[in-house]
Amino acid sequence: MHDHEALLFELFAIFLAAKVIGEIFERLKLPAVLGEILAGVVIGPYVLGWIHPSDTLSSIAEIGAIFVLFHAGLEIGPQDLIQVGRKALLVAVAGIVVPFVFGFAYMHWRGDATTESVFVGAAMVATSVGITARVLGDMGVLSSRTAKIILGAAVFDDILGMLLLAVVDGLAQSAGVQWVKLGVLAAEAVVFALVMIFIGPQIIRRIRPGMARLSTHNAPLLVALTVCLGLSYAASQIGIAAIIGAFFAGMIFAECSPEWDLRPRVHAITEFLGPFFFFSIGSQLDVKLFNGEVLTVAAIVSLLAIVSKVVGCGLPVMSEGWNTVLSVGVGMMPRGEVALIVALVGLKSQIVSSSTYAIVVFMTAVTTVLAPPLLRYLFRKEVAAQARVALGSRH
Amino acid sequence: MHDHEALLFELFAIFLAAKVIGEIFERLKLPAVLGEILAGVVIGPYVLGWIHPSDTLSSIAEIGAIFVLFHAGLEIGPQDLIQVGRKALLVAVAGIVVPFVFGFAYMHWRGDATTESVFVGAAMVATSVGITARVLGDMGVLSSRTAKIILGAAVFDDILGMLLLAVVDGLAQSAGVQWVKLGVLAAEAVVFALVMIFIGPQIIRRIRPGMARLSTHNAPLLVALTVCLGLSYAASQIGIAAIIGAFFAGMIFAECSPEWDLRPRVHAITEFLGPFFFFSIGSQLDVKLFNGEVLTVAAIVSLLAIVSKVVGCGLPVMSEGWNTVLSVGVGMMPRGEVALIVALVGLKSQIVSSSTYAIVVFMTAVTTVLAPPLLRYLFRKEVAAQARVALGSRH
Repeated sequence: MHDHEALLFELFAIFLAAKVIGEIFERLKLPAVLGEILAGVVIGPYVLGWIHPSDTLSSIAEIGAIFVLFHAGLEIGPQDLIQVGRKALLVAVAGIVVPFVFGFAYMHWRGDATTESVFVGAAMVATSVGITARVLGDMGVLSSRTAKIILGAAVFDDILGMLLLAVVDGLAQSAGVQWVKLGVLAAEAVVFALVMIFIGPQIIRRIRPGMARLSTHNAPLLVALTVCLGLSYAASQIGIAAIIGAFFAGMIFAECSPEWDLRPRVHAITEFLGPFFFFSIGSQLDVKLFNGEVLTVAAIVSLLAIVSKVVGCGLPVMSEGWNTVLSVGVGMMPRGEVALIVALVGLKSQIVSSSTYAIVVFMTAVTTVLAPPLLRYLFRKEVAAQARVALGSRH
Repeated sequence: MHDHEALLFELFAIFLAAKVIGEIFERLKLPAVLGEILAGVVIGPYVLGWIHPSDTLSSIAEIGAIFVLFHAGLEIGPQDLIQVGRKALLVAVAGIVVPFVFGFAYMHWRGDATTESVFVGAAMVATSVGITARVLGDMGVLSSRTAKIILGAAVFDDILGMLLLAVVDGLAQSAGVQWVKLGVLAAEAVVFALVMIFIGPQIIRRIRPGMARLSTHNAPLLVALTVCLGLSYAASQIGIAAIIGAFFAGMIFAECSPEWDLRPRVHAITEFLGPFFFFSIGSQLDVKLFNGEVLTVAAIVSLLAIVSKVVGCGLPVMSEGWNTVLSVGVGMMPRGEVALIVALVGLKSQIVSSSTYAIVVFMTAVTTVLAPPLLRYLFRKEVAAQARVALGSRH
């Protein structure tokens, strides 16, 4: 009984802090999501210490992340993903290779051990798509071509990143890299993605007429929620992030979303649960790790992290103009919780020193915090165009 | 990382089972909520044992219950509650006194100890409003006068029940009854309820014009969610159930709900989180406790539990006709998780024997399972009238 009271306080405090700081940020013309992350930094364990992480809170944050991606997926049909597929794949591959090489080379040049350098490289690779999805969603530009390239690339990035994490994890357990296991993982992930893109929507189209025959109120929403939970679980079982499963679930239902009124309802759930995810990202940032000595290297690594993603992810879309190059690069920039997990794996197995860990944390903070306002700037034309359309349709 | 995967599986399995059995029940013309409870019985720890209770699951269930009551509250403005206030209070008081006397007298007559009889009496008092609110909501009759009397009485019942629980808890800790503490508790609860009914809506009316000036997207929904979490916490701090705070939060926003489109959005959140609450009620029912010896007494206690609530709660609304008498009595009938908590307190402090505990569990199961189909039957005219209105407005 008492635990429930503590949880209610935490939920209330987190939601209030996230929304109040979010509102302040909106008024300063900064993205609300940044305010929610900052709320996590401030009232989280490392600054004020009002809220301490717990199993329950991290579970709710995870469910929140699932809904952020489910909601984003609802905007992007499988055709959209196929259309941008080749480009998205190139963006993902280059967006992994370039940051890894940059990170590894710099740390190695500084005189760090090879394995430690590999960890920093790996941490620079991961894209945290939740933040980008939220910012693009808040601006209402998820259906733009650039947004589709970014989200498509983020999906591939996650699959490739998962393979890299398996390599890194093998290094951490000093078991070496298990190539067979890696091959199986890769095959599973590719099959999962292909099934989702090509077969998933077919199945929904088949069951579509039957939906009206269900007796349950709001049957389509409930079926969609069930599929979302099921695919999140399936993805996590395969070894991809659960949120990628949720994204695919959204994509599968994208076509039927207008008919079944799914988006506003899923959005309401996301509005409630999402802030707990962004708060938890902030609450994982230990600002006390930053000190003079670390800061210089951290600043350089952060710069490399930014430049390498823009170069790597931008290269394959050069033909679409500078604005797209920058938008895609910045959209793929936030490292979020994924980099923190990589660094934590290294820290726990004592391959990564605590100062290197601090460097990764700093890089994560910088890329996570810079991406939302930059995205907002880069997408300003799309937003203005949307506003004109909305205004036009009202007259 | 591994815990998250286990949780995803549990969420998926619970949601799927609840919705599939719910759909089957709907087709059998039985309330879906019963199917969700049955899902908890079947795949919960006591039958198939696929899902075991965890902190996280019970927290999500608690949040689900909060949304079920928040959603119900949105339909009932403070004026409605004031209008039915005197009657609801009488219903609540008689609905506590009669079942307590029936339960206590029967157990005492059977030769059970006085304290044990007090526990059974107390368990027969508690009304689990979540189930009734859900059934009435599913039928779309929350705004009927009878529904308002039931929900108003349930709120008073909870406050009075809380005081009784404090008495029982004092007995369990063999500290005797602390009358001063009890008086403070009672005063706090009354002040809380009065503030909610008379001052809460005023405050919302004041901040209403300012809401449009907030920069956050969907500001009204987010403010309502914050208030809901805050009042749930406040209620639990005072010692009333958190769900009563959530109900008041809904009531406060009831007036602005159409303007801000709150109901469909809160409903979507409830659709996602609610099933975990009903599932958890079912998962707490240990059917293995029922054996021949216990069953006879359990059947009698269950019958007394039903009759006493119908008599107690029905008496004050005799003037409104038989249908109202039965509707109110049945609406207040389900004991749900509240009775289980009372019995568990007794069991843990060894005042209540395991066979008496089984009796309470049985009584809870019977009242919880019978109420939804009976309610559906008793409200059939209102539902038909509503259907005619809906049909008429379409032509």
